[in-house]
Amino acid sequence: MKKVVILLSGGIDSATTLAIARSEGCELYALSIDYGQRHRLELERARQVAASFGVKEHRIIRVDLRGIGGSALTADMEVPKDRTQEEITRGIPVTYVPARNTVFLAIALSWAEVIGAETIFLGVNVLDYSGYPDCRPEYIRAFEDMANLATRAGVEGKKRFTINTPLITMTKAGIIKRGAELGVDFGLTLSCYDPTREGIACGRCDSCLLRKKGFSEAGIKDPVRYAA
Amino acid sequence: MKKVVILLSGGIDSATTLAIARSEGCELYALSIDYGQRHRLELERARQVAASFGVKEHRIIRVDLRGIGGSALTADMEVPKDRTQEEITRGIPVTYVPARNTVFLAIALSWAEVIGAETIFLGVNVLDYSGYPDCRPEYIRAFEDMANLATRAGVEGKKRFTINTPLITMTKAGIIKRGAELGVDFGLTLSCYDPTREGIACGRCDSCLLRKKGFSEAGIKDPVRYAA
Repeated sequence: MKKVVILLSGGIDSATTLAIARSEGCELYALSIDYGQRHRLELERARQVAASFGVKEHRIIRVDLRGIGGSALTADMEVPKDRTQEEITRGIPVTYVPARNTVFLAIALSWAEVIGAETIFLGVNVLDYSGYPDCRPEYIRAFEDMANLATRAGVEGKKRFTINTPLITMTKAGIIKRGAELGVDFGLTLSCYDPTREGIACGRCDSCLLRKKGFSEAGIKDPVRYAA
Repeated sequence: MKKVVILLSGGIDSATTLAIARSEGCELYALSIDYGQRHRLELERARQVAASFGVKEHRIIRVDLRGIGGSALTADMEVPKDRTQEEITRGIPVTYVPARNTVFLAIALSWAEVIGAETIFLGVNVLDYSGYPDCRPEYIRAFEDMANLATRAGVEGKKRFTINTPLITMTKAGIIKRGAELGVDFGLTLSCYDPTREGIACGRCDSCLLRKKGFSEAGIKDPVRYAA
């Protein structure tokens, strides 16, 4: 069985990515990052999603991006609410965490090298997303090139790391349909950037709005409770 | 003044790199990473080195690479001792921490983006080093390319990140001479992978051996105490 590392946030995209990796018969090593995010509840959801797919191992690794700041997700800044679709997709929002995917992929690369995995699954997509630079295909290819020079693989020439991004050209609705087909329990997932302490989604942040729109377009009922 | 981020470990190379950045008139933001290294004492030394150069800010950021393991520096494995020069420079040793420089540079990139710095200084060198893949110039260039796609810079086209590696082709002796010229207090630095609790260097790990050889070849007295 092919060992793969899957970055798992607890949201829809990474849960569907995990389901796709399982459908391909991979041995699943799920990795979640506790980076000081305000929606830290997502880690517990990631644990539940990982368990629901019977992963070989789920590890949560801490990195203190709150000590770096610069984002509404890691510093004392307001999470924007009630933005229009046009506002959401124009420019880079304050919820962008500087170099987050690079930090996450670097940690995933470290674990992949230790366990002997050659593939890292990442649930980024360029449609219906929030304008983050580190979700674009050209970024993913550049990370891959770098990864192959960064590690034993680059010196010994035995392995070649691949970043597998199965959702990259899918819409949110398409992702939800695919996830539903593959048995993702969306009731376990948490997309909200600003949930209540009990884990109830705000329903008004960019991430909630993209999720609601996705379920609506997919014609599937969202099992999650919203405060608004 | 040009803002720069310097990765500072508490060893000779990064201290000399910091001195070079200062000599170029940069505004210094020093960054040390608490990654669960067995020689965690180096962080206190990094603090002292940063203070001795009057940096604008020194931040220590935690990332739990002990949760990843796979290295004699982050797992319960023996640090090799008394290896010959030939053994040290052949192959990748067990002290290699998988993807460590990628994790460090990713965190540095995050901070650089937040504070508006375009340059990250990193004290890697390809001579008199330990055979780590993530110290090679081709790796550094690939990280740079990736960094420029990973961040706002890549989307907005305003900045271009550079990884500055002033020591990359220097010998350890050359680094020590340059550091001495620039006023580095080598008595503050700690190179040892396996120091005593009091911070006394073992004198027998690869890092101690490379350091001793460097001071000897530079004709400078090493102010540090060794157990052996």
